[in-house]
Amino acid sequence: MLGMQRQMLDYDTTNCAIGATVAMIGEKWTFLVLREAFNGVRRFDDMQRRTHAPRQVLSDRLGRLVRDGLLRKVPYQEQGQRSRHEYRLTSKGLDLYPVLVALMQWGDQHAAQPGGPAMLLTHRDCGQPVRLELTCGAGHVLGSAREVTPRPGPGARRIA
Amino acid sequence: MLGMQRQMLDYDTTNCAIGATVAMIGEKWTFLVLREAFNGVRRFDDMQRRTHAPRQVLSDRLGRLVRDGLLRKVPYQEQGQRSRHEYRLTSKGLDLYPVLVALMQWGDQHAAQPGGPAMLLTHRDCGQPVRLELTCGAGHVLGSAREVTPRPGPGARRIA
Repeated sequence: MLGMQRQMLDYDTTNCAIGATVAMIGEKWTFLVLREAFNGVRRFDDMQRRTHAPRQVLSDRLGRLVRDGLLRKVPYQEQGQRSRHEYRLTSKGLDLYPVLVALMQWGDQHAAQPGGPAMLLTHRDCGQPVRLELTCGAGHVLGSAREVTPRPGPGARRIA
Repeated sequence: MLGMQRQMLDYDTTNCAIGATVAMIGEKWTFLVLREAFNGVRRFDDMQRRTHAPRQVLSDRLGRLVRDGLLRKVPYQEQGQRSRHEYRLTSKGLDLYPVLVALMQWGDQHAAQPGGPAMLLTHRDCGQPVRLELTCGAGHVLGSAREVTPRPGPGARRIA
């Protein structure tokens, strides 16, 4: 399959969008924090309980996600307690949803748990199951990577 | 948005498909190795040159991907050289394609490089641009995470 992709090998990888993205989020705990954010978890202690991340690691990953603009800190205060903050997805963070769904879809297929999937995604409006599909501008649904031809984009840099 | 997802918080995360998947591939170098595999790169030295991974790290990540069944080792021999092996995606590995496309799509949008995307994905058969879409069983295209309602699946474990 991949022979047809070989033309991309004449171009370098320094401005690759995947590289830039995984530099930001390509780490196990970061994914789990994002998962919890999409589950509606906003507070440090809840995230800690649900991810089992060591506190220092969790604190570090949350800090990076805030610095990179994927989460924002919002102050809250419960009666009689000191002011704290919670973490909410920004629109930049919300746009990561397909990454999480793609991970989940693959996990359901290839890292299946006894008893079946722990979570199903359904369309809010009609209740039907949701999935990610590769589609093209002409409306075709693609079956696999084999049906995709990568081409150099405007930012492609030919290897010297 | 996420309030409606709060019902998932009554369930534990130990059999989460995302957790299982990122335990396997949730690491920067692993993603870059997979990117190169999808680009048609099969040989250690080519991967090393294109990812800039330290050799020991690359060797470790390739070994794990083989052990987890995402890549397979295929022997080859060039004239006058000792036998070596190259790495090819298995069908389990090929199924990760949507994860890579989702990372790329997000990166093109939010970690944009000067000059624009380095790579464009097009449909082999019609040449139109390819993208990932969230769709449902009734054929609706979903605009964002806000339109998805997660539900406990058959494997969901209620928190005691």
